[in-house]
Amino acid sequence: MTSPKDPATPTLFEEAAPDKAKASPSKPKAAKDGASASEGEGAGGKEPGGKEPSRRSSAEEMATRQREISVAEFFTKNRHLLGFDSPLKGLLTAVKEAVDNSLDACEEAGILPEILVELHPISEERFRIVVEDNGPGIVKDQIGKVFGKLLYGSKFHKLSQTRGQQGIGISAAVMYGQLTTGKPARIVSRTGKKARAYELLLAVDTVRNKPELHAEREIEWEKEHGTRVEIEMEARYQKGLRSVDMYIKLTAIANPHVQLTYVDPGGVKVVYERGTKALPKETVEIKPHPHGVELGRLIQMAKETQSRTLSGFLQEEFSRVGPKVAQDICKLAKVSDKAHPARIAREEAAALHDAIQKSKIMAPSTDCISPIGEELILAGLKKELEADFYTSVTRPPAVYRGNPFQIEVGIAFGKPGGVGLELTEEGRIQKVKKEVPATEDLVGNADEPVRVLRFANRVPLLHQQSACAVTKAVIHTNWRAYGLQHPKGALPLGAMAVLVHIASVWVPFTSESKEAIANYEEIQKEIRLGLQECGRRLGTYIRKGKRLRAEFDKRSYIEKYIPHIGIALQEILDLSDPDRDGTVKTLDDVLQKSRKF
Amino acid sequence: MTSPKDPATPTLFEEAAPDKAKASPSKPKAAKDGASASEGEGAGGKEPGGKEPSRRSSAEEMATRQREISVAEFFTKNRHLLGFDSPLKGLLTAVKEAVDNSLDACEEAGILPEILVELHPISEERFRIVVEDNGPGIVKDQIGKVFGKLLYGSKFHKLSQTRGQQGIGISAAVMYGQLTTGKPARIVSRTGKKARAYELLLAVDTVRNKPELHAEREIEWEKEHGTRVEIEMEARYQKGLRSVDMYIKLTAIANPHVQLTYVDPGGVKVVYERGTKALPKETVEIKPHPHGVELGRLIQMAKETQSRTLSGFLQEEFSRVGPKVAQDICKLAKVSDKAHPARIAREEAAALHDAIQKSKIMAPSTDCISPIGEELILAGLKKELEADFYTSVTRPPAVYRGNPFQIEVGIAFGKPGGVGLELTEEGRIQKVKKEVPATEDLVGNADEPVRVLRFANRVPLLHQQSACAVTKAVIHTNWRAYGLQHPKGALPLGAMAVLVHIASVWVPFTSESKEAIANYEEIQKEIRLGLQECGRRLGTYIRKGKRLRAEFDKRSYIEKYIPHIGIALQEILDLSDPDRDGTVKTLDDVLQKSRKF
Repeated sequence: MTSPKDPATPTLFEEAAPDKAKASPSKPKAAKDGASASEGEGAGGKEPGGKEPSRRSSAEEMATRQREISVAEFFTKNRHLLGFDSPLKGLLTAVKEAVDNSLDACEEAGILPEILVELHPISEERFRIVVEDNGPGIVKDQIGKVFGKLLYGSKFHKLSQTRGQQGIGISAAVMYGQLTTGKPARIVSRTGKKARAYELLLAVDTVRNKPELHAEREIEWEKEHGTRVEIEMEARYQKGLRSVDMYIKLTAIANPHVQLTYVDPGGVKVVYERGTKALPKETVEIKPHPHGVELGRLIQMAKETQSRTLSGFLQEEFSRVGPKVAQDICKLAKVSDKAHPARIAREEAAALHDAIQKSKIMAPSTDCISPIGEELILAGLKKELEADFYTSVTRPPAVYRGNPFQIEVGIAFGKPGGVGLELTEEGRIQKVKKEVPATEDLVGNADEPVRVLRFANRVPLLHQQSACAVTKAVIHTNWRAYGLQHPKGALPLGAMAVLVHIASVWVPFTSESKEAIANYEEIQKEIRLGLQECGRRLGTYIRKGKRLRAEFDKRSYIEKYIPHIGIALQEILDLSDPDRDGTVKTLDDVLQKSRKF
Repeated sequence: MTSPKDPATPTLFEEAAPDKAKASPSKPKAAKDGASASEGEGAGGKEPGGKEPSRRSSAEEMATRQREISVAEFFTKNRHLLGFDSPLKGLLTAVKEAVDNSLDACEEAGILPEILVELHPISEERFRIVVEDNGPGIVKDQIGKVFGKLLYGSKFHKLSQTRGQQGIGISAAVMYGQLTTGKPARIVSRTGKKARAYELLLAVDTVRNKPELHAEREIEWEKEHGTRVEIEMEARYQKGLRSVDMYIKLTAIANPHVQLTYVDPGGVKVVYERGTKALPKETVEIKPHPHGVELGRLIQMAKETQSRTLSGFLQEEFSRVGPKVAQDICKLAKVSDKAHPARIAREEAAALHDAIQKSKIMAPSTDCISPIGEELILAGLKKELEADFYTSVTRPPAVYRGNPFQIEVGIAFGKPGGVGLELTEEGRIQKVKKEVPATEDLVGNADEPVRVLRFANRVPLLHQQSACAVTKAVIHTNWRAYGLQHPKGALPLGAMAVLVHIASVWVPFTSESKEAIANYEEIQKEIRLGLQECGRRLGTYIRKGKRLRAEFDKRSYIEKYIPHIGIALQEILDLSDPDRDGTVKTLDDVLQKSRKF
């Protein structure tokens, strides 16, 4: 037990407990307290008992044990909340957090990203992960905080589409490394040709949630600018649908502007070349939309604003509020639009909040969102997934709780490998042998549930599939209408991969580990609309395939009899063998050409 | 966009960027940076393009935007993580957090708890919740921090069985209230007869994660000691399995020493009288067990210890390490047991950690756990649930990751209402009419999935049932063996409630909102063993019931013919009517008594 003299939280005993003199073993006092409880009240009419002598603590003793908990301690003890529940998942989470940061930094700086990811096995249960980028680098005195302090970053306070948003991820990875191996992380960073490169060894001081610097020096680095992170951690490596390999592959699909080099624990190097040299459209930071703001937040914003009038405040701090709208809101709320924002009372603020909800305000602008685009999704799917049929849809932007978002859906359908049918230009149907892809099969088999590939702000989500709004939308779409088998309440069956991407200024994840998207109605609806549009195209394709199959069967049937017809004609008309063969040929041509498909 | 002159994070530009002079619109520099990227490297052999002119940010500009994020801001934006995702759930979460705190405080002080919970509707979508206890009270200068600062508390740093463990819950409720209504919470507290009662109006300063005091004064309060919390919030009230009503009822079952008074929004008052006057056994705080400690944590503990020798350190800071074990560990690790803990190198610490894992160390002591107990579980079930059959099991304590825990299971079986069969003392089987309970039916119908009542440290868990280790254990137990229908991969069917309680010094929840228990193998196994034991008893009961039913049917069948036998005998033997009736009576008696059940 903590001693009552814990210096961490000095308390003013005098006020609350005048009889506090016998400091340490104040058991008797506690007993008295307890006893008084058993006599005093009895609101329910029943006398609370005192069978056993009350021992235990008084309010004063308890006060001495109250302490602040550092957020780093909190997440060390609750590290499963951040995706570090197991060595297997920890490896993926660490890589993901580092790559997310690299990509965000490159794009923010306007640099076409080149990322290197390496997994070095130290032992069966220990790996060193390396993630290196050609980003803008980090200025030296920020490195410590970026990698060694939880809840520190530039993305939390603004509304814009970034991969990271919390300022927790990479520091948590560093913390997990030090927790499991005792070793600090190694960071190398350089901000430009004329700047020096620095190497830092650092860890998180969990008690204080501050970076703990182990070493720092200037080094020579061949890169002109960029950042390299090395973390040693307890981890396990495994191939499959939730592996680092898969994460890298999916990242390449959703980020065609990135060049990704991946070295797996066996030393095998895979390079994903970029498919486009165009960086994603630069996204604009937006102000909150009035319809998404709660009363408490409104009051706080009014307190903090620089504006001197309510009208100015509404126009300055929110998007889509012009002088006219601001005036209308104030009128409706019966508050002067000249009032000083910081001085409006709670009641006026409540009226204002009410008026905002009732006012018609234009939907937020959507240039803050940068979708992948239908073409690039199609290109990505074609590049990395073997299939027969591809389609993609980018939905128009929509809004949930004042936050703009945009949904994209892609489908790759058709069993890789086996034999397929193809219609030639002359109208012939021919069999084609399909190659079995050497890589991980992302499309799956015809009798298996379809594969759902989920992305949020271009980041693949590999865990917690069943808790995700995307999965729910796929399950609740009627795939039977599009020619697939679809057991009730489950994923449809088919050799198919469904890609869904949500881009938003604030993706509502169900946990800090950012593995699943919360089930907002507006998001659900948009995903479903995207799925339906792709589904209809898929349906057309599948029906066409079925007709092709039916026609092929019919033709095969007729084909079988044509030679016999030839022989019969030969006998009846007394044809020569060449004449007979010629007739058969003609009949065959007629069959293939005249029967329209 | 944040101005680059943001004073929050001053940076040393000199070192990292010697050419930084043109402070504000350094766009040209960014462009240069981007361009140099397009020339410089090209590790993959491909020239990274520069199609569009790089505009965007440099490392220096980005540095100015880095900021610390307060944990209160973080959880305001991510409040679904704490259980405040909707007005419906928010109401329950707030009540739960307040009651948890009240019960913990009462028990810590050795006071038999009397709790009052009131829900006052302000409008359809706004409620004032009131939770009042007769606990030890809170000393005045701690009140602010307890209710107005996240990650502050006495329970996080110790290993002991408490309901709260994070120091987040009640402050989050206050924060949710202020966010949705703009109003501060009202706290009244008094620490004893001789102390004064204080009333505070307070909120959370989210930017700084500090209490924001709106008002404070001394008041007259009829209670000698205790705390009252009032929070006004946006909320919705609904009856049902996940309602506040249900939470209160389940709390009464798992806490038979508590007197609970509940006033629902309609003003209806329900009093749950306590079933025992014995407080739960006082739990002891324990030290961490060596087998559950990671390397990084070991290193940190060695740094912080007061002990001067390694041997002393191991004995002082861990449970179950005596001089002999400490010596053995040091020997195995090839480190002197006289070494100064703070000065051992990382490699030695690693060897020590290794040696600890390899050493046989006694399992942690388990007096730190206070289960409800088989009798009280049974009493609780009988008091609140109408059923035909009850049983309960308290498993012996076990350990996961060095943390002791204990599982308890209770079962209430049998459809409430309808007609049942009963065996009288004379061996007669008689029909009994069962009353339909007026309250919420917790046992359910025979063709429905069984109801799972989950508890962690005596707190009912109402949400995220499917993600919980308890539900998984119920699903994976073979209930067919005990006479229930059991669809594969789903809950068994039956008019039955299954209660599972986990008591532990650290309950591994899957999220901060503490709604589901993480699926540790050791926990899973213990729950299953408890379920099986109860299941076997249930099986015996169900089989007996089936035999009773079969016997009843057989007797009914014979009974039907007895009068006819009487008439036949009368005709053959020429009996008088009374003789015939006497014979029928005798035959009936023989039937009922001679056929043994």
